[in-house]
Amino acid sequence: FTSKLPHTETTIFTTMSALAKDYQALNLSQGFPNYPSDQRLIDLVSAAMNNGYNQYAPMAGNLDLRLAIAHKYDVLYKQHYHPEKEITVTAGATQAIFTVISAFIKSGDEVVVFKPAYDCYEPAVKVQGGTVVPVQLTAPDYKVNWETVASKISDKTKMIIINTPHNPSGTIWSESDMLQLQKLTANTDIIVLSDEVYEHIVFDDAQHQSVCLFQDLKQRSFITASFGKTFHNTGWKVGYCCAPDYLMAEFRKVHQYNVFSVHHPTQKGIADYMQDENTYLSLPTFFQRKRDLFLNLISESRFQFQPAQGTYFQVLDYSAITDQGDVEFAKHLTKVFKIASIPLSVFNLNQQDDQVLRFCFAKTDDTLLKAAEILKSI
Amino acid sequence: FTSKLPHTETTIFTTMSALAKDYQALNLSQGFPNYPSDQRLIDLVSAAMNNGYNQYAPMAGNLDLRLAIAHKYDVLYKQHYHPEKEITVTAGATQAIFTVISAFIKSGDEVVVFKPAYDCYEPAVKVQGGTVVPVQLTAPDYKVNWETVASKISDKTKMIIINTPHNPSGTIWSESDMLQLQKLTANTDIIVLSDEVYEHIVFDDAQHQSVCLFQDLKQRSFITASFGKTFHNTGWKVGYCCAPDYLMAEFRKVHQYNVFSVHHPTQKGIADYMQDENTYLSLPTFFQRKRDLFLNLISESRFQFQPAQGTYFQVLDYSAITDQGDVEFAKHLTKVFKIASIPLSVFNLNQQDDQVLRFCFAKTDDTLLKAAEILKSI
Ligand SMILES: CSCCC(=O)C(=O)O
Ligand SMILES: CSCCC(=O)C(=O)O
Repeated sequence: FTSKLPHTETTIFTTMSALAKDYQALNLSQGFPNYPSDQRLIDLVSAAMNNGYNQYAPMAGNLDLRLAIAHKYDVLYKQHYHPEKEITVTAGATQAIFTVISAFIKSGDEVVVFKPAYDCYEPAVKVQGGTVVPVQLTAPDYKVNWETVASKISDKTKMIIINTPHNPSGTIWSESDMLQLQKLTANTDIIVLSDEVYEHIVFDDAQHQSVCLFQDLKQRSFITASFGKTFHNTGWKVGYCCAPDYLMAEFRKVHQYNVFSVHHPTQKGIADYMQDENTYLSLPTFFQRKRDLFLNLISESRFQFQPAQGTYFQVLDYSAITDQGDVEFAKHLTKVFKIASIPLSVFNLNQQDDQVLRFCFAKTDDTLLKAAEILKSI
Repeated sequence: FTSKLPHTETTIFTTMSALAKDYQALNLSQGFPNYPSDQRLIDLVSAAMNNGYNQYAPMAGNLDLRLAIAHKYDVLYKQHYHPEKEITVTAGATQAIFTVISAFIKSGDEVVVFKPAYDCYEPAVKVQGGTVVPVQLTAPDYKVNWETVASKISDKTKMIIINTPHNPSGTIWSESDMLQLQKLTANTDIIVLSDEVYEHIVFDDAQHQSVCLFQDLKQRSFITASFGKTFHNTGWKVGYCCAPDYLMAEFRKVHQYNVFSVHHPTQKGIADYMQDENTYLSLPTFFQRKRDLFLNLISESRFQFQPAQGTYFQVLDYSAITDQGDVEFAKHLTKVFKIASIPLSVFNLNQQDDQVLRFCFAKTDDTLLKAAEILKSI
């Protein structure tokens, strides 16, 4: 056989986490919390198991959870998704993304992707025989030039993948970006895949620009989202997607033969947990405190930065320190200074290297203190 | 857009389970147990959550679980799979199957599938632009004519999907079938996808014919398997696959962008549970008692049958009762007699109708007693 993904290696997240382990470095690379999640949530999942939620969940997801998700959209965005027809629970946001792409992309189709891009979009497109059309954004503010985007659209364009708050850069899109996207795709068959896994992690009172806030855009968009990020259990692999019913019907055709359904007791536990709206309403404050702590601590280091606008990642520019390439420098910091991060070039077109590294601040205050001490010593 | 799966509907399992619910019928349709699973296993998963197994599992799976799986193959088949390179944990066997097909099948490729076939194979092939080449088997013994199979192989054949013990028929393949398959695929690039989710449910002291028992075949085969079936928690959606490393490397390229990883605490709980080999060695006896109970109870009904050789499904021939088509009759039994089953024609080529229905006997003795009372009254 000839490989469908000849150039695919182990992800940078696995690589850097393994290196961190080997060198006993502080691991601020792969995005996951190192503090325990809420014990109440764990207890609710245990209770669901003890109460018999151990057989197949409905294919589209436990109904209590779909109702809780619908309620969240009502509360946060004053936008409604129908729990029966427009919401599907998935085995993490990644599975939702892979399934959207599998359901709609065929051999020869083009998909516009903004770079730097989270690493799961492009392989998923390639597995379907599609082609990624990249639009490169650049540090430090990663602003979109919408004329450039327009020039990339053709008859073959079937999908545009967007991601705000943006991993890895920590930037967010403005209302004006969303309006441009809406205008650009108006009266086309282009499907927008909006990766909104960091929707609850937006800082300085900014408003998350969900595609669901733009009526015309909403009609051709999938939102993919993650409870792992939201509730600090990245290993539980429960997420969901929302879309108008004509799109969701196609999604479910593939979803039911990809995973069929998702870990039932976890769905039920999360549904019960979300009855208290504060479980998600409190998140921006929780993470803003972490970001501010981290940035205050490193303000006197030689790293330069613009504060992350969203996500739990902070990008640091190290060009004042060395000329080294970012992959090399990230490895050096892990091995010698015992702190692991993610080099951004791996997410860029032609490995464009802006000499920036991404640090995850979803960590205990103690870890952030230790990390800052190291960063100041570099 | 044009749908990739224009003719795909909700699965028969969802349809019949929903009908059973609407009519308050005994549900012997969708395959899942209605008795609680071992509390010790549930407690081990809760313990894993309480012990912090809540962040990303390694992409290939929790290592303790991969070691436990490797040990199981050593014990049961005296065959070794390398836990690091040849075993990957998946979000259920269905995700393993979808991912194998996604990793290897391209537009224009052909895949041989034996009918009646579990319903997830064909859509997964179609999503990749491949074509299913069906080989129809026929009630009551579903024997393979290997000359017919040979006549279906061409340059375009990239994969053969097999399933023993076989869902929905409850038959098993013999050593001679496996040797024929091995011979037929010798010196070809054809990949064998062996769906072995019912490996532990084989009756009357028969030996499960795993592809791993046939050295040459093993070199080009994937085994897909399910802990949901094994440990009576179909809603947990944890399975795995095994393959030689050159095939597993390709699988993982797709797996890491489909789901990345699987519910971590459940993996750890299952790994701990499997330290006691009896948890799986006891399964054939457990299910044989259920099969025998059910068949003894219905021996005086008007349904005819050959005892299932494996799986937790019994196929019953109702041709002595009515000429009705099987879908119609299954619905009739659900609505009027309050017992739900699965019609086999939906899994056949051109909906060939052998007038047989499939009943799941992974049910409490009490449910089997009630079911038998109903079946005797028909
Ligand atoms: C799936 S591992 C990557 C986790 C993550 O979202 C990130 O670090 O960006
Ligand atoms: C995924 S629902 C189908 C369950 C099952 O394996 C069966 O009933 O055959």
